[in-house]
Amino acid sequence: MSDHAEAASRDPAGTRGVVPRQARALATRSAILAAAAEEFADASYHEASLSRILERSKVTKGALYFHFVSKESIALAVVDEMEVVCREIVDHAAARGLDPLRTAAQVAREVQDAVAGTTLRAGQRLCSQGFAGPHRPGWPFRFWEEVFLDLFARAGEAGLLRPGVDPASFARTVVDVSAGAFVVSLGITRLADLAQRVCENWELLLSCTADPGWLEGWRAEGGMGAVLGPHLLAGRGDGRGWVPES
Amino acid sequence: MSDHAEAASRDPAGTRGVVPRQARALATRSAILAAAAEEFADASYHEASLSRILERSKVTKGALYFHFVSKESIALAVVDEMEVVCREIVDHAAARGLDPLRTAAQVAREVQDAVAGTTLRAGQRLCSQGFAGPHRPGWPFRFWEEVFLDLFARAGEAGLLRPGVDPASFARTVVDVSAGAFVVSLGITRLADLAQRVCENWELLLSCTADPGWLEGWRAEGGMGAVLGPHLLAGRGDGRGWVPES
Repeated sequence: MSDHAEAASRDPAGTRGVVPRQARALATRSAILAAAAEEFADASYHEASLSRILERSKVTKGALYFHFVSKESIALAVVDEMEVVCREIVDHAAARGLDPLRTAAQVAREVQDAVAGTTLRAGQRLCSQGFAGPHRPGWPFRFWEEVFLDLFARAGEAGLLRPGVDPASFARTVVDVSAGAFVVSLGITRLADLAQRVCENWELLLSCTADPGWLEGWRAEGGMGAVLGPHLLAGRGDGRGWVPES
Repeated sequence: MSDHAEAASRDPAGTRGVVPRQARALATRSAILAAAAEEFADASYHEASLSRILERSKVTKGALYFHFVSKESIALAVVDEMEVVCREIVDHAAARGLDPLRTAAQVAREVQDAVAGTTLRAGQRLCSQGFAGPHRPGWPFRFWEEVFLDLFARAGEAGLLRPGVDPASFARTVVDVSAGAFVVSLGITRLADLAQRVCENWELLLSCTADPGWLEGWRAEGGMGAVLGPHLLAGRGDGRGWVPES
């Protein structure tokens, strides 16, 4: 039963008690999810523990089991939140009004911004381990493939790609290299070198796909290094590779 | 205690019984590992079950617990075997005496051959989920980075790369895109489109890194499609994306 339905069923007449009770339930659920995102961002699904999520969230075991039936159900709720973050990134990057290739690079930058927090990092780890959830087949890989296919198709129409570059194939390679950079960087440096890898990958891929004129202008602005700026410094400076959460 | 030590301690004089007992223990261990590789190739670590491994291996629960203390210890032993497979691939590809860039493409082909079996597929899934084992930091990503760095450095010296291509950076991108293709293809098609993704990724990356003269010769031979040949047909034909185990 949802939080709303639960509160309503205990208070069918809709008296004053409903709103505070709903608000309390939502705050509890939100505390559990924030704690779970921290836990799944720091640990693999296997290593993550419900008791550490409880400790981090400061809610009671009863409250946790009221909202979630298992570690898996909490993990899937974290992926729900990750989905919201990913969709916001795409909208936010698009709203800047850049050309399609610069928008694609900006999406990569905003993913790095979000990896600095816990929700996207946790969600990406869970999805890499196969915990996207049965109701979300191929998440987030199919989603990102569609996002980049749309951007690269528009880049092609605008003459920003070299002749012969297939936008769908380019989109698949970007999705592969991005998913791989996360898994590899997590495996070898606990994400300390993620931004550096992302920078090199985009520089290499754009050098073979982008129109030379576009590339010249983009490089004059500083290329992918300028787009990722603070993340590259953070990766070199504190050994963690992501900027602190604001 | 190892199989050898165990057999020897029960038979300190080294009588005739030792060899059959050792042989039996090794055969049991090998049956468990073959069953475990099947299980971890088909399922995530979380989904994989000891009882299915028992069923597949046809050994007793007692025999299984004599050799392995936990699901994790079996998983790590599968990764041990995957490590052997990876090293064999590199030696085998090198022994063909191709130039360094063709050797790199051949390594990618032989990885596809091995993904058709269970050991590499299981090991790669386990490593993508963070089960490389504490004694093998960064496995297999650092290993592949060294392999491709060596090949690309030699390709650079032989004039097979375009001026300005950094072999180390190119090697990191190849490792990212390869690790990612596996995770993405597993997530969206249960590896049915893996060979197709690998083909496109190598074609794109070589198009901007390889010397144009080399590329022309390579394309005349059929490029990456010819290197991966049967895997591409398998991926399109039976929807599984890997050729049956021989």
